Amino acid sequence: MTDDHQARYSDLVEFELRPDPNDTRLTQQVSGIDHHGKPADAAIVCERPLTLFLNSQEIVTTMTIGDHPELLAVGFLKNQGMLKLDDTITAIDYDDDLNVIVVRTARTTNYEETLRKRVQTSGCGQGTAFGDLMETFRAVQLSPNAIIKTSWLYVLTQKINTSPSLYLKAGAIHGCVLAHQDCPLIYVEDVGRHNAVDKIAGYMQLNTVSPHDKIFYTTGRLTSEMVIKCVTMGIPILVSRSGFTALGVEHARSAGLTLIGRARGKRFIALSGEDRILFDADPQSRLEDPKSTSRKAAEADL
Amino acid sequence: MTDDHQARYSDLVEFELRPDPNDTRLTQQVSGIDHHGKPADAAIVCERPLTLFLNSQEIVTTMTIGDHPELLAVGFLKNQGMLKLDDTITAIDYDDDLNVIVVRTARTTNYEETLRKRVQTSGCGQGTAFGDLMETFRAVQLSPNAIIKTSWLYVLTQKINTSPSLYLKAGAIHGCVLAHQDCPLIYVEDVGRHNAVDKIAGYMQLNTVSPHDKIFYTTGRLTSEMVIKCVTMGIPILVSRSGFTALGVEHARSAGLTLIGRARGKRFIALSGEDRILFDADPQSRLEDPKSTSRKAAEADL
Repeated sequence: MTDDHQARYSDLVEFELRPDPNDTRLTQQVSGIDHHGKPADAAIVCERPLTLFLNSQEIVTTMTIGDHPELLAVGFLKNQGMLKLDDTITAIDYDDDLNVIVVRTARTTNYEETLRKRVQTSGCGQGTAFGDLMETFRAVQLSPNAIIKTSWLYVLTQKINTSPSLYLKAGAIHGCVLAHQDCPLIYVEDVGRHNAVDKIAGYMQLNTVSPHDKIFYTTGRLTSEMVIKCVTMGIPILVSRSGFTALGVEHARSAGLTLIGRARGKRFIALSGEDRILFDADPQSRLEDPKSTSRKAAEADL
Repeated sequence: MTDDHQARYSDLVEFELRPDPNDTRLTQQVSGIDHHGKPADAAIVCERPLTLFLNSQEIVTTMTIGDHPELLAVGFLKNQGMLKLDDTITAIDYDDDLNVIVVRTARTTNYEETLRKRVQTSGCGQGTAFGDLMETFRAVQLSPNAIIKTSWLYVLTQKINTSPSLYLKAGAIHGCVLAHQDCPLIYVEDVGRHNAVDKIAGYMQLNTVSPHDKIFYTTGRLTSEMVIKCVTMGIPILVSRSGFTALGVEHARSAGLTLIGRARGKRFIALSGEDRILFDADPQSRLEDPKSTSRKAAEADL
């Protein structure tokens, strides 16, 4: 990859970016009734449209919580192959009132034909994927030297699960984390799982973050879409607390991606790229997460 | 609605349609390693593309587990407004090898313009996918006479949660149920939440099932997309064990939809259309589901 020498990951600190549960634009207090028929309030996440233009071309309207629109826009374009690693972004204009964001590039772009070939994926809120994405996917060489120690995994998931988030406040939201060893660097959330992934991709693109020694954590399922995105982002290790689909596993194996799922507490199962895993921790050392952090998982999920 | 007198719901028996965990095309046994580094097998759901044509026009490619392609195809077209209630379907041709399904209608169809608009303006969720969907949504009159007793809700969710399913076998899958009172009628699953909804819509269209006295249950979140679909299907009550988004609640309130979320065990919260709920059960009477049925929920989810 050409971005190695520019890599800036060492500049990133723990939770360089993290959810802001106190941002009043992202959640709302709503009144209803509970199972006793008594008045009850609930904190719920917001969901609003964002329409994305690449130069003069309207690309997509996606439903999002609305934070980090510039990361979402750039990451979406990157993950759909509409923005190349060496593309120069000349401007990003976001209109908060119109819910419109325009990404402008030095290169003249035209994706009329690509837009025709869109595929509806199994992602929540109907993700999208485009035809030539699989060619990019097949060309990726993931780092053979990357590793994940189980001691890192245990620390990492505990840090993520106990960190303040919209998920802990309101539930019904997905989270994605870009991590280095046991350190969560970039933690983003969105009502659309694919949006959370795209925000990470946007951050990496805008900050020239090297993917080769990173770990990608998601709360979402390890579907074909998720695996394809992680591989095309160049990240060699993908972890989820959720389960797998068979096509996700198939793609992971063909790309040599390390695929770890059902990662809850001390438990996990790896179905691809197992040789990158170093078992240096006693599973018993991984304490269960506090009950207060799992409450929303049981109440209001995905 | 014109379909009332044709309604056949009384012909439907409990679990008229239900998941088949023994269908070997739907799950796969995959080998990997567990958190001890020991060999471990996992049952995981399959995920494959299905390309849908309406007459001679290619409409969409969606990722699905692959059962009931005819329900998925018809339901998708219905929910996107491409198939009217009084349309005559002359043939449904499914090619298992090519993963292609063609729905043929007596009426000549041409959604070139609609598809072009969708390509330019939508990606996820909201009714903006197809321009006129929101008009349909706003025109729907949901039955003011429909009710849901909490005793029904408790029996219903217990029946659903303890019924054999791909979810209990493999996790990482969404389920939707069309119910009458405390009786689950049609229970379908899919890797794509929107696909599971569409399969129910397809069943209702093909079997002329009246929506007015029905309850719709989903494992998925109550987003704007889910609410819009339920309302346009004419079903007055929507229940989920998952949480809400603010836009979902807003749409539900504007349509007068009864919206019940976080329905787990005895607990739930209603944020719209509360007047349809009859509190006739002691919440304590709702026993917790057996631990064996919640295991997958905790391990491998959505």
